[in-house]
Amino acid sequence: MPEFDLIVRGGTVVTASDQFLADIGIRAGRIAAIADRLEGGPEIDATGLFVMPGGVDSHCHIEQLQDGGGADEETFLTGSTAALAGGTTSVVTFSTQFKGGGVLAPLAEYRRRAAAGAMVDYAFHQIITDATEAVIRTELPELVASGVRSLKVFLTYDPLRLDDREYLEVLSAARRLGCLVTVHCENYDAIAWRSKALLADGRTAAKYHAWSRPEVVEREATHRAIALAELVDTPIEVFHVSGSQAAEEIARAQRRGVKVWGETCPQYLVLTAEDMDRPGFEGAKFMCSPAPRDAAGTAALWEAIRLRTLEVISSDHSGWCYDGARGKRAGGDDAPFTKIPNGVPGLAARLPLLWSEGVAGGHITPSDFVRLTATQPAWLFGLQAKGRIAPGADADLVLWDPAKKVTITNALMQQAIDYTPYEGKEVTGWPVATILRGQVVMKDGVVQAKPGSGRYIPVPAYDAIRPRGVLPDGFDAAAF
Amino acid sequence: MPEFDLIVRGGTVVTASDQFLADIGIRAGRIAAIADRLEGGPEIDATGLFVMPGGVDSHCHIEQLQDGGGADEETFLTGSTAALAGGTTSVVTFSTQFKGGGVLAPLAEYRRRAAAGAMVDYAFHQIITDATEAVIRTELPELVASGVRSLKVFLTYDPLRLDDREYLEVLSAARRLGCLVTVHCENYDAIAWRSKALLADGRTAAKYHAWSRPEVVEREATHRAIALAELVDTPIEVFHVSGSQAAEEIARAQRRGVKVWGETCPQYLVLTAEDMDRPGFEGAKFMCSPAPRDAAGTAALWEAIRLRTLEVISSDHSGWCYDGARGKRAGGDDAPFTKIPNGVPGLAARLPLLWSEGVAGGHITPSDFVRLTATQPAWLFGLQAKGRIAPGADADLVLWDPAKKVTITNALMQQAIDYTPYEGKEVTGWPVATILRGQVVMKDGVVQAKPGSGRYIPVPAYDAIRPRGVLPDGFDAAAF
Amino acid sequence: MPEFDLIVRGGTVVTASDQFLADIGIRAGRIAAIADRLEGGPEIDATGLFVMPGGVDSHCHIEQLQDGGGADEETFLTGSTAALAGGTTSVVTFSTQFKGGGVLAPLAEYRRRAAAGAMVDYAFHQIITDATEAVIRTELPELVASGVRSLKVFLTYDPLRLDDREYLEVLSAARRLGCLVTVHCENYDAIAWRSKALLADGRTAAKYHAWSRPEVVEREATHRAIALAELVDTPIEVFHVSGSQAAEEIARAQRRGVKVWGETCPQYLVLTAEDMDRPGFEGAKFMCSPAPRDAAGTAALWEAIRLRTLEVISSDHSGWCYDGARGKRAGGDDAPFTKIPNGVPGLAARLPLLWSEGVAGGHITPSDFVRLTATQPAWLFGLQAKGRIAPGADADLVLWDPAKKVTITNALMQQAIDYTPYEGKEVTGWPVATILRGQVVMKDGVVQAKPGSGRYIPVPAYDAIRPRGVLPDGFDAAAF
Amino acid sequence: MPEFDLIVRGGTVVTASDQFLADIGIRAGRIAAIADRLEGGPEIDATGLFVMPGGVDSHCHIEQLQDGGGADEETFLTGSTAALAGGTTSVVTFSTQFKGGGVLAPLAEYRRRAAAGAMVDYAFHQIITDATEAVIRTELPELVASGVRSLKVFLTYDPLRLDDREYLEVLSAARRLGCLVTVHCENYDAIAWRSKALLADGRTAAKYHAWSRPEVVEREATHRAIALAELVDTPIEVFHVSGSQAAEEIARAQRRGVKVWGETCPQYLVLTAEDMDRPGFEGAKFMCSPAPRDAAGTAALWEAIRLRTLEVISSDHSGWCYDGARGKRAGGDDAPFTKIPNGVPGLAARLPLLWSEGVAGGHITPSDFVRLTATQPAWLFGLQAKGRIAPGADADLVLWDPAKKVTITNALMQQAIDYTPYEGKEVTGWPVATILRGQVVMKDGVVQAKPGSGRYIPVPAYDAIRPRGVLPDGFDAAAF
Repeated sequence: MPEFDLIVRGGTVVTASDQFLADIGIRAGRIAAIADRLEGGPEIDATGLFVMPGGVDSHCHIEQLQDGGGADEETFLTGSTAALAGGTTSVVTFSTQFKGGGVLAPLAEYRRRAAAGAMVDYAFHQIITDATEAVIRTELPELVASGVRSLKVFLTYDPLRLDDREYLEVLSAARRLGCLVTVHCENYDAIAWRSKALLADGRTAAKYHAWSRPEVVEREATHRAIALAELVDTPIEVFHVSGSQAAEEIARAQRRGVKVWGETCPQYLVLTAEDMDRPGFEGAKFMCSPAPRDAAGTAALWEAIRLRTLEVISSDHSGWCYDGARGKRAGGDDAPFTKIPNGVPGLAARLPLLWSEGVAGGHITPSDFVRLTATQPAWLFGLQAKGRIAPGADADLVLWDPAKKVTITNALMQQAIDYTPYEGKEVTGWPVATILRGQVVMKDGVVQAKPGSGRYIPVPAYDAIRPRGVLPDGFDAAAF
Repeated sequence: MPEFDLIVRGGTVVTASDQFLADIGIRAGRIAAIADRLEGGPEIDATGLFVMPGGVDSHCHIEQLQDGGGADEETFLTGSTAALAGGTTSVVTFSTQFKGGGVLAPLAEYRRRAAAGAMVDYAFHQIITDATEAVIRTELPELVASGVRSLKVFLTYDPLRLDDREYLEVLSAARRLGCLVTVHCENYDAIAWRSKALLADGRTAAKYHAWSRPEVVEREATHRAIALAELVDTPIEVFHVSGSQAAEEIARAQRRGVKVWGETCPQYLVLTAEDMDRPGFEGAKFMCSPAPRDAAGTAALWEAIRLRTLEVISSDHSGWCYDGARGKRAGGDDAPFTKIPNGVPGLAARLPLLWSEGVAGGHITPSDFVRLTATQPAWLFGLQAKGRIAPGADADLVLWDPAKKVTITNALMQQAIDYTPYEGKEVTGWPVATILRGQVVMKDGVVQAKPGSGRYIPVPAYDAIRPRGVLPDGFDAAAF
Repeated sequence: MPEFDLIVRGGTVVTASDQFLADIGIRAGRIAAIADRLEGGPEIDATGLFVMPGGVDSHCHIEQLQDGGGADEETFLTGSTAALAGGTTSVVTFSTQFKGGGVLAPLAEYRRRAAAGAMVDYAFHQIITDATEAVIRTELPELVASGVRSLKVFLTYDPLRLDDREYLEVLSAARRLGCLVTVHCENYDAIAWRSKALLADGRTAAKYHAWSRPEVVEREATHRAIALAELVDTPIEVFHVSGSQAAEEIARAQRRGVKVWGETCPQYLVLTAEDMDRPGFEGAKFMCSPAPRDAAGTAALWEAIRLRTLEVISSDHSGWCYDGARGKRAGGDDAPFTKIPNGVPGLAARLPLLWSEGVAGGHITPSDFVRLTATQPAWLFGLQAKGRIAPGADADLVLWDPAKKVTITNALMQQAIDYTPYEGKEVTGWPVATILRGQVVMKDGVVQAKPGSGRYIPVPAYDAIRPRGVLPDGFDAAAF
Repeated sequence: MPEFDLIVRGGTVVTASDQFLADIGIRAGRIAAIADRLEGGPEIDATGLFVMPGGVDSHCHIEQLQDGGGADEETFLTGSTAALAGGTTSVVTFSTQFKGGGVLAPLAEYRRRAAAGAMVDYAFHQIITDATEAVIRTELPELVASGVRSLKVFLTYDPLRLDDREYLEVLSAARRLGCLVTVHCENYDAIAWRSKALLADGRTAAKYHAWSRPEVVEREATHRAIALAELVDTPIEVFHVSGSQAAEEIARAQRRGVKVWGETCPQYLVLTAEDMDRPGFEGAKFMCSPAPRDAAGTAALWEAIRLRTLEVISSDHSGWCYDGARGKRAGGDDAPFTKIPNGVPGLAARLPLLWSEGVAGGHITPSDFVRLTATQPAWLFGLQAKGRIAPGADADLVLWDPAKKVTITNALMQQAIDYTPYEGKEVTGWPVATILRGQVVMKDGVVQAKPGSGRYIPVPAYDAIRPRGVLPDGFDAAAF
């Protein structure tokens, strides 16, 4: 019996704090050895390549169930294909509660679907849309026991959004049970108010989506989300920070000692609001929330990444096609912006875009890239065997050609979604092979994995979710 | 006929930017001359005294109507007596809308009551508790035409509070019509959530009032109030800032160029949360919202005053007795803090407390005192003949003995409220005479004025309420 | 005998905190009365005009003695003419110590010259260039006794500049004796180092003056000047702040509670570094130190004025002609920037420029204008009868036509300097009469005053110069 | 031949971003393999221990030559012993230029001494005390060619200190040649001025050392050092930050994008100014510069470490004994503080103190510990084979017992210095073995290494020293 199931030969291994030439030996799906020279097993040649932890995409929507029945077109199977094509080996995706319903039933359904289709490993954020006593007191403990320790709340969107009281209930439950709370921060009433005025004024085109939610709307909700988390002493992550104002609120809170983390996504580093002003209905392809901003906002995000205000870069991959019955265009080319589904796809594009803009563009180092796309999201969401290259860690790796120039097409994305907002963009740096738990599941763009081969990752209690330990005014935590 | 109706002889006249020895000549209720020596008319001797503009108390609750009928025990008559006793000659008090009702009818009733009882001049803040289309579109224009240009909203308190959408409607109306919006900034849901938990935990005593609304709750609402005002481009004043956190949000906004002003009150400069922990039910006497904080908070407020982050000091005089059918104690000595009416009286105590702590205490100059208590509130609320000493201005003056030491008793307050939270406190500096439009209406503590002699001050369009002029993203103001 | 020597009839009187229609009655050189209507004496008609305190220019170089003998071409006589033409009635000018010499002798000479020529009232800053024991311990006490309470130090310029030790000696003496210290803040070594490199690189033109002292050079010295003043607990004013960086250091210090004030000058609000790049030798006309910056810097200065970080606007009038034996051009048109005298004239242009850019331009109100150009400089430098309109104050007034449009020419400046950097600039707002101690000394541009009619203003101890009261680590002040 | 020269068996390996159970295999002085299980060679048991990179002490004074002849009592031999006893395997120590002399000759002498005595690997900071043309233009290029890429300047201390011009010359040379500049930031003149006053006031005891240099003195020089480095666009490290004020200047600069790093030392985390007030002459044992501050300062430093403002923790080990001819006490027990040599020893105590206060104290994680004490100093000073655990890196390791409680005595420090300021302090966590390039050079406190076995580390060009790339105003770098 050979010593290793697979040897990754001769690459430049990159961790969140180092890079070095080494072979990696894999046994039983885990990294067994990192050494200057390993022998004894089949090999994959990584000469001239970077060998990095497989991407951990901690924010992506896959096969999301719709309240009226049906699910997103991006299934666990298609989404996994896109992920592996793009060098991502783990995702944290969503289980959605519907108003009036519980959380355990949908989670079971998501797990059933994922078990059947997923070809990447996966954990779940549980979206809370109805913070009922039953859910909070009865279902959440069971949910946590089953390994879900991330709750997601929306401060905007009908019918998803929670008011402040419900958000406080979720924060309080998270504190008691040991969960992280992730938050979509935009002010619901402000967007509704501005949207109504815009429509009344005849401003219905896609570009007015950005007008309906200027940065101050995001800043307001970000500050509120943090302030209430401070009140309850519960750690949170702010999703998809789009510009300087929300980032500044996060930085201020971090300086105060609040346990708050910030995430951004490639769309905010690459797109701007002007993309929504493309001719015809094209602008809808770039519509997401918060809205992309401008060049100054993008520069501010790179600064926030440099200063570690933002430590996670995810895709916020969204499951809306452009055409088709549920697509962005389903309401016709005259549909007002308020009727166009929000969100852009990005599972496969995330890593190439970030490498190209970030590493090749001189903003970050390869170790930063690993930290932002794998190590930190895995740490933050308790995926303890992921995002690292070390003996004992899962052998999830991406072999990366740093110099390869590729022009992005939707075909390369290998996703169910019928378009990419990055169509035609040339990037430098590309994943040439992806390894999941020791199996080569993508090579030269060909994804080869068995549906259902992805595994559920139950999350235990872990460091990031520990409250800072002080409630204002000496409250007993037990009282909450 | 003598040249002057009254000459204030030989005092040190103080304005917001100067002080000098002069006589003041009054004719027909207005200041006619300021000179080194005036002759020709009856005189009041001000030798050794400061002569300052009569106080303008831009935030006090007088004879407030209750939803179930009846009104606060502090009537326009008794409230005026207290005001004059304390050196205050003008007030901006409140007209309250009840849920489901309009604003014109209550305003008419308040004006009727004030016309009958008031012995100080007065203007109104209109409280909006129900931002209906009818009120916003039909009644408010008429209200403004009648001279009310200040709207008040509560972000907390049942049933007063507005949600963000309603607040935006008020901001938008204020922008269109030319009004200032004043805001009580505390997060409703956070207070409710914490209060519920405290009660469930058996923590019902008065001191837990402070625990139910720590500073972060005020900071959150302050930031939100400012952010939404930025969105609409409407000037606002934040009422009763209690500590460093809300003050810092205001300072940040001012640096960004937002038109936001901040107010604080003597209770936040003199009391602390510990006062609510006095034996028995006594703590209820010090209960107001936001809650008084601590010594560090008080120091931060003085700093914010020095840096002009806070430019108005009002009383937020509240009409709740301690005893009696509607008093703080009406629910019995076991009543939980959530059932005790909020607010403390301060009409008469405002100026002596501020002089004693501020001027005698070395934090501010006499000109600062005049600016904070008279000139700036008059400017901010458009009371153009008030708060100033200049030819043409109303002859509203207070003669002030800077060295007089007085131990505060409720009797000295001359108010209907049956207690003062400052009972027994010794202050340095005291008003020895008050002059309203040329009439000596208080002398040596004796108030002599005719009920109804106070006048309504209709407010025209004025500078402070002009929007900064830029809506985000180039919105046409007309659309809102 | 008429009651008044002069009545200023019917103008809009402006103080630092108010404006109102009134007559002003003058008797024996002082303001005797301010009233709605005065009779009894000769009149000057101010209908339609603003009546403001005569300008106080607290930073201008007049008839400055040169080390080798001789003096600036701008004499007390010509400088006074310019001042009165521009609405300025008081100046704080300089007495210069020469290396190796004392301070009393030059002060006596300056006083002699001023007594002969000055037609405005005047006080002195004593420049310290040699902080010898004799000067510090023996001469300064006598200087202060004679009424000089402002010391000026240069942190750059040969041979004027002090090193940190000498600056500390001056701060310490100022603290002991009760003086304000004013500081020219630029880093000497940095300028020398950059200048040498520029010259070595063949970059000698006037525009390289700005390259030799970028903003960081000013920021460094500003922070240092403040830090050492904090150490000694001595109040200071930072002269001629040119942009955002130095202003931010001052603002930070003010927030820390340090007694530091900031001044800027019209040249920093109106000119930019690009003016030094005009064809031929013209650029030299705009050369001053610190160098003018750019449009963003100008905007930052207006913000700093709005936030009261900067509270004084002076001219820094400098006595160098363009042509002539001592002029900017004396070294020939090939002279490198290091050989061209620094400084621009501005005694007469200061008020019109500030009104036009500031008041007409919408940045400040007329009361702000009065505060910045008269009240605050008078307060800061202890000129207690100046800069105010109140009974007892000196009757120094300017009658201002706010709507008059004038194209600036050097002839209008009525100065000895042979050019103005503002030649051809159209301004809105112009002084139509100037009154000094009750005498109309300028009317419609015609200056009529007797040489030597200006008076020396001895400065007593006053509030601004009181130390904050705390030395670091509890030092006894006596030890220093 | 066995596969490995040494196997570190069964420890918890800690890197700057990870920790995991693994064996480490060493071959030819380098790490050859990191694996779940290695066989084939001699073993050292690390079960239950942390295995971390050997400490990199990037700031320590060893065998420093005195201008009058002789050297510090802490020689390369004794210093190495202390370092190894404390888990440190590499040092960056100093070569000193004497006024009037060059830098190559002393460097040669230091290298000769180190080659003879050192038992740890070493690099050098070259202290520049005389920035002559010859040194700057002729010697420094040769110095850099020989592998020294760190220059050290003092902004205080006679005769070491540089004035701003000399500092600029050094910055400019560093930029040209590719060096990092490290800076001792305190204001020379301020300290001299205060010291003189203190002595004149009879305040001579050791505790007045702190009075002679309050925090503002350090803040001033820190801001200046950064500002001038900004001007020249040269990366710098600020040595031994002692409190919040200097840390804040560094943080501000980092936010501006300036390449500036900050270091602190255990003495600032553990000692306070009060230690200098111990009875008799004892206080001298705690005297270092900057002076230790207070509890608030210590808390601020931990915050600055958390926020990554400070990223290096060194010892600033100083070679002064307490007793003896050159000791602190050499001037007698009545010597004024100005005559007592500054500095405290800490080579051996650095890691135990930081682990105990930092990791056991809950401020930092083991990975933070590794980053602060090894990875980051090695990265910052270009010691590319040091501070890391990865194949190819030097096999420099410390085996750490995290739970061992030890009471510090000077005997345990194994240094030539005759005292430790931490005598009697109990710490949690202790190095139980030290490995240098694969050799076990300390075990259970016994140091076994050959004098001279340490190696010189020549430093090539590396990332940290690259200028940010922009000189102010577009200067050609070539011109400087």
